[in-house]
Amino acid sequence: MENFEFAFPTKIIFGRAAEDKVGREVKKYGNKLLIHYGGGSIKRFGLYDRIMKSLKKEGIEVVELGGVKPNPRLSMVRDGIKLCRKENIKFILAVGGGSAIDSAKAIAIGVLYQGDVWDFYSGKAKVKESLPLGTVLTIPAAGSEVSGDSVITNEDGWYKRSGGEGTYPKFSILNPEISFTLSSEQTIIGVSDIMAHVLERYFTQVKNTELTDRLAEATLKTVINNIKIILFDPKNYNARAEIMWSGSVAHNNLLSTGRIPDWGSHMIEHEISAIYDIPHGEGLAIVFPAWMKYVYRFNIQRFAQFALRVFNAEAYLDDLEKMALEGIKKLEDFYREIGLPISLKEIGIGGDRLEEMAAKCVEDGPIGKFKELNKKDVLEILKIALK
Amino acid sequence: MENFEFAFPTKIIFGRAAEDKVGREVKKYGNKLLIHYGGGSIKRFGLYDRIMKSLKKEGIEVVELGGVKPNPRLSMVRDGIKLCRKENIKFILAVGGGSAIDSAKAIAIGVLYQGDVWDFYSGKAKVKESLPLGTVLTIPAAGSEVSGDSVITNEDGWYKRSGGEGTYPKFSILNPEISFTLSSEQTIIGVSDIMAHVLERYFTQVKNTELTDRLAEATLKTVINNIKIILFDPKNYNARAEIMWSGSVAHNNLLSTGRIPDWGSHMIEHEISAIYDIPHGEGLAIVFPAWMKYVYRFNIQRFAQFALRVFNAEAYLDDLEKMALEGIKKLEDFYREIGLPISLKEIGIGGDRLEEMAAKCVEDGPIGKFKELNKKDVLEILKIALK
Repeated sequence: MENFEFAFPTKIIFGRAAEDKVGREVKKYGNKLLIHYGGGSIKRFGLYDRIMKSLKKEGIEVVELGGVKPNPRLSMVRDGIKLCRKENIKFILAVGGGSAIDSAKAIAIGVLYQGDVWDFYSGKAKVKESLPLGTVLTIPAAGSEVSGDSVITNEDGWYKRSGGEGTYPKFSILNPEISFTLSSEQTIIGVSDIMAHVLERYFTQVKNTELTDRLAEATLKTVINNIKIILFDPKNYNARAEIMWSGSVAHNNLLSTGRIPDWGSHMIEHEISAIYDIPHGEGLAIVFPAWMKYVYRFNIQRFAQFALRVFNAEAYLDDLEKMALEGIKKLEDFYREIGLPISLKEIGIGGDRLEEMAAKCVEDGPIGKFKELNKKDVLEILKIALK
Repeated sequence: MENFEFAFPTKIIFGRAAEDKVGREVKKYGNKLLIHYGGGSIKRFGLYDRIMKSLKKEGIEVVELGGVKPNPRLSMVRDGIKLCRKENIKFILAVGGGSAIDSAKAIAIGVLYQGDVWDFYSGKAKVKESLPLGTVLTIPAAGSEVSGDSVITNEDGWYKRSGGEGTYPKFSILNPEISFTLSSEQTIIGVSDIMAHVLERYFTQVKNTELTDRLAEATLKTVINNIKIILFDPKNYNARAEIMWSGSVAHNNLLSTGRIPDWGSHMIEHEISAIYDIPHGEGLAIVFPAWMKYVYRFNIQRFAQFALRVFNAEAYLDDLEKMALEGIKKLEDFYREIGLPISLKEIGIGGDRLEEMAAKCVEDGPIGKFKELNKKDVLEILKIALK
């Protein structure tokens, strides 16, 4: 086990009607906020009205900035920073999934920074201060409601980069009922993202990680069991609740404690979604199994354990490679069963830009901690993903 | 799943030589602290010197109060409060296990309170403010290093009561090496406490708690596997690390999220250790199986799940009661295997004060959430515990 530091400073408010408490929470930080969200779905289903009612009850003045797109853009972050400065905003409330939350985090650090906010994502600057922010989560997926960083896409060159560590939400409101109206497509894409967050942490070369191995396996099994319930019964509160809370547990870094996570698949996927603008979770369902096929040889025992404990695969202790491969197959089968794509071709992406993506992916050096990957390795993984 | 609020504000600094960072952390809160500890063991093994070195390096002035006893006493808390006021202390550092930490928490809330500190434990007052405090953990057991409350014994009537919610440590330093010198007795008593913290949360009547069920089972299995390693190899860093981190995960309330924990066994045990001054973990190893035998009928399925998932018991799906009883037996067998007592008689406690303990236990009303327990029930459980 590795040494670590860990804290989970975000207050989670979880359950039915949890959004009615948003005014009470925001009030602790100021009386004028920016509400930041994506499309109109939050207005269609009444969530927007409930939030505004709670804020008004506490006498909080509201400035709006909607229209955040998936793979949130630097240009909107810059607009948000200008708006916050002009309006003297004290608090940012993100309502949405990872895109709205990440965009809000970027605005929150940009407002107090004299230079260009992209500096945090290009590695030029580190976050020292941030406007306080909170979230009302609508899509269990990115885990940004409990994390300290964010991912932003720079349209100038289509770079999708993470940065901004140090922007934990003060609170996150998680009401599983809000996820009832998600389409099955949105739901499974979220599940892929959640599972990838666990898998990135699970596949480590660090030895003696029993507790966190088991916590990770517990989270994966819960997600696998409950997404199947939701696909047949989208308004099943308990199954939605299991997925929503799993999405936060997957990404609050408890599952990284004492371990060295990989993050290679995430970086490869960022190159795909930066160019093709596909949902991150869709890309991860394609990249992760491809990555697994390329790297499993570097720790067959761990892949065999994954097969046995997460998918109840048959134990062939004299042939761990057979078990390892069975685990990868079972993950692919599961993704396919719930309706996720598992190859680039399925979503209409051909092989013409693989070289370009592989090159961009390692621009800042090799990626991945489980197995260090150079351009050649990334290209091979992309080829496997192509199928 | 129940609605919940959850945060885990304590910063964990975990690993080898973690105590060398104590000065850096304390410095954020002030330049004069009270160091609060139990017996001389922290001086014998060099821990005290390493902490003092780190504090001195940052120029922090140190006032000392040692001598905290197991089942920490109200009288010492009162002494500590007086000392802190006289010396104008800004921060309290507890070095030890649950007793030193709980005593420090009680002092921290008492210093800023005009009335008698026992008010917080008798239910007369609620914590509104507290001196900041930090911990250097020496015994993985009580989980007080990550919790917001404390348990204090009032010698006037030998009442042992919990209270003081709202005193999360600012940081807790967990170095598994510090636990190398614990005796096997101290170690197994700690394990009993850790397991009881998980079990109190596991046995709930709330339905649809899959994620937290599985996280709890993961924690129990990890503890069960690693204590066996430690008993043969006390300086096994990784096994000590698994137990130490499990002890915190067991009690930081993640495993309570969405559930209603029981806490009946803890309350019964408090009556035993208040009168007989036995270690809390020893009492819990005796009370918990007795409680299980008395209440399993009220949710046989949950007890059968415990047997199957935690102890890999044989599945008799046509006879869940058989499975439930097998799980209780396996827990008792495990306690016995690692050297814990499982009856009051074994530790020299007879049946003459059972009535008195049962009566005190329900003085403020029935206890327990899994199955509400009155005086008669508590007495029956104590009789089972007598054996």
